[in-house]
Amino acid sequence: MSNAVEEFNAYRAKMNDKILADNNKIVKRIFNLDTNAFTEGALSKKTKEILGLGNSLVLRCDDCVRYHLETCYKLGITKEEVVEAMSVSLLIGGTIVIPHLRRAYEYWEALEEQE
Amino acid sequence: MSNAVEEFNAYRAKMNDKILADNNKIVKRIFNLDTNAFTEGALSKKTKEILGLGNSLVLRCDDCVRYHLETCYKLGITKEEVVEAMSVSLLIGGTIVIPHLRRAYEYWEALEEQE
Amino acid sequence: MSNAVEEFNAYRAKMNDKILADNNKIVKRIFNLDTNAFTEGALSKKTKEILGLGNSLVLRCDDCVRYHLETCYKLGITKEEVVEAMSVSLLIGGTIVIPHLRRAYEYWEALEEQE
Amino acid sequence: MSNAVEEFNAYRAKMNDKILADNNKIVKRIFNLDTNAFTEGALSKKTKEILGLGNSLVLRCDDCVRYHLETCYKLGITKEEVVEAMSVSLLIGGTIVIPHLRRAYEYWEALEEQE
Amino acid sequence: MSNAVEEFNAYRAKMNDKILADNNKIVKRIFNLDTNAFTEGALSKKTKEILGLGNSLVLRCDDCVRYHLETCYKLGITKEEVVEAMSVSLLIGGTIVIPHLRRAYEYWEALEEQE
Amino acid sequence: MSNAVEEFNAYRAKMNDKILADNNKIVKRIFNLDTNAFTEGALSKKTKEILGLGNSLVLRCDDCVRYHLETCYKLGITKEEVVEAMSVSLLIGGTIVIPHLRRAYEYWEALEEQE
Repeated sequence: MSNAVEEFNAYRAKMNDKILADNNKIVKRIFNLDTNAFTEGALSKKTKEILGLGNSLVLRCDDCVRYHLETCYKLGITKEEVVEAMSVSLLIGGTIVIPHLRRAYEYWEALEEQE
Repeated sequence: MSNAVEEFNAYRAKMNDKILADNNKIVKRIFNLDTNAFTEGALSKKTKEILGLGNSLVLRCDDCVRYHLETCYKLGITKEEVVEAMSVSLLIGGTIVIPHLRRAYEYWEALEEQE
Repeated sequence: MSNAVEEFNAYRAKMNDKILADNNKIVKRIFNLDTNAFTEGALSKKTKEILGLGNSLVLRCDDCVRYHLETCYKLGITKEEVVEAMSVSLLIGGTIVIPHLRRAYEYWEALEEQE
Repeated sequence: MSNAVEEFNAYRAKMNDKILADNNKIVKRIFNLDTNAFTEGALSKKTKEILGLGNSLVLRCDDCVRYHLETCYKLGITKEEVVEAMSVSLLIGGTIVIPHLRRAYEYWEALEEQE
Repeated sequence: MSNAVEEFNAYRAKMNDKILADNNKIVKRIFNLDTNAFTEGALSKKTKEILGLGNSLVLRCDDCVRYHLETCYKLGITKEEVVEAMSVSLLIGGTIVIPHLRRAYEYWEALEEQE
Repeated sequence: MSNAVEEFNAYRAKMNDKILADNNKIVKRIFNLDTNAFTEGALSKKTKEILGLGNSLVLRCDDCVRYHLETCYKLGITKEEVVEAMSVSLLIGGTIVIPHLRRAYEYWEALEEQE
């Protein structure tokens, strides 16, 4: 399994546990909403993940991009679809997005190399 | 036809004409890409518009939200789908997005009242 | 009562009603959290409102600033305290915050003229 | 004289006076720095105004853009130069900048119509 | 002493020295204001640090968050208070803030392990 | 040659190649515009690079800052000019820019140590 993916998920899980252990109501509910928001609804899971990915990219949050890339990957969204979504977000967000696009490509590669 | 929609589009068209009349190469190409990016591809037009709407909302650009709401409306995307997309973007972008959500609702209403 | 305050609150209430009438779960819960987050806790209500005001200012959200200015006003936070909080946020957020500071001052004046 | 320019400057002057009347040290010093930062130095006034304009545009602050457009105009910077600077910022900041570009064009026109 | 805290402070001090050695007036005054803005005034030091922390978090600046976490820690602000402030900023700034919250938790832990 | 500069450029080149190999039209054209936008025009190359640097700094994109610092360095723009440009952007963008200023100083030093 790819180290980049493994390390990201291990750190994420470890810190989320510490955050949730504090039992702050607002924080816990937001974490909870985060799971609920991406379930099947009027929009498909796939469309929602594409949306989550694009939103993360224009907001230039590398860890959020990594998280949604992984969910996209697990849902069977193709690289072509992911790249097309990212191209729309690149246009909307401008060249300032390019460094994040580089790291997104690197992480997608790590996801493909996992198995 | 609704005044809000009419006015928005008239101003948008008038100023775009002035901008493009200046023949700045970079500006013209970006305007051109903007048309190209939302055509059918690996992702459907509908998914791309949902993405454009969500990206505009988290970046808190009212005019961009209005533009994509109108394109969504013309593509037959339902209010329920639009609201679900905006709920995902609200969660990602935080309560700071709420004032933009209010204006988005107002514009959607104007779109429905057009006919 | 000042027109600026009255109009802001009327529009806010009207659109919030329309948004909540749609019964989108994510949206409703975020609106609900928004009420909960500013209640007395480890931090006083006053500190939380000062924080909400400052966060709104650095994120340059005029409507959010107006909302928190009003809550600050009702809690009896003095103008000097409000201005000091805004001065910290101006330093952190840069001169780009100045136009929002102008509108904040205008709204605070409207709050004072209400009675 | 153009109403748009006149109104913008009148509001700006009126509110700045109120802000500075409060004698908050941090606020006063930042306003003071704002004047100092754009004087001739290692870089020319012109280059600094171009920089101030571009920074304001990528940060999507309409009032800041208006302020720097006016200073550019008074320094004799040509429309072609201003448009070229804005085209660079449009590319860096993405299509989300377009609505602000429209309003910038409108204000530049108002500056030209002043006399 | 914790390595994370030590390394952060050493790098910060080293680079600040280099920056200030250049004697750029604007830069020096802004660094100076940064010290002044957080002294006791109409608001307590504690409230100002809570505000500085929250502003840094919604603006998603990890180093700024670390700096204010350390000042909060030294002022004797409790973890519960810090977490409550961060929960407000998480709600305002959205889930995009979560990765920064993880790193904030990690740094707070490093501060506690220092002694 | 400095490792920091070498590593940055190697990673940048490697990932750009992978991105461009995918032949996404939107992405390719934006990369292409990025080269075109900084050529001599109504504004000099130097002014455009100063603008690109300042825009990158207020948008707080370290990699973009590094890229423009390097281009500035190669064009013979002096450290004093670069620092002055960054001081303007620091004032506009606020103290939140300081951590990025530290990393910019570090990279400029690496550029000077290259030879």
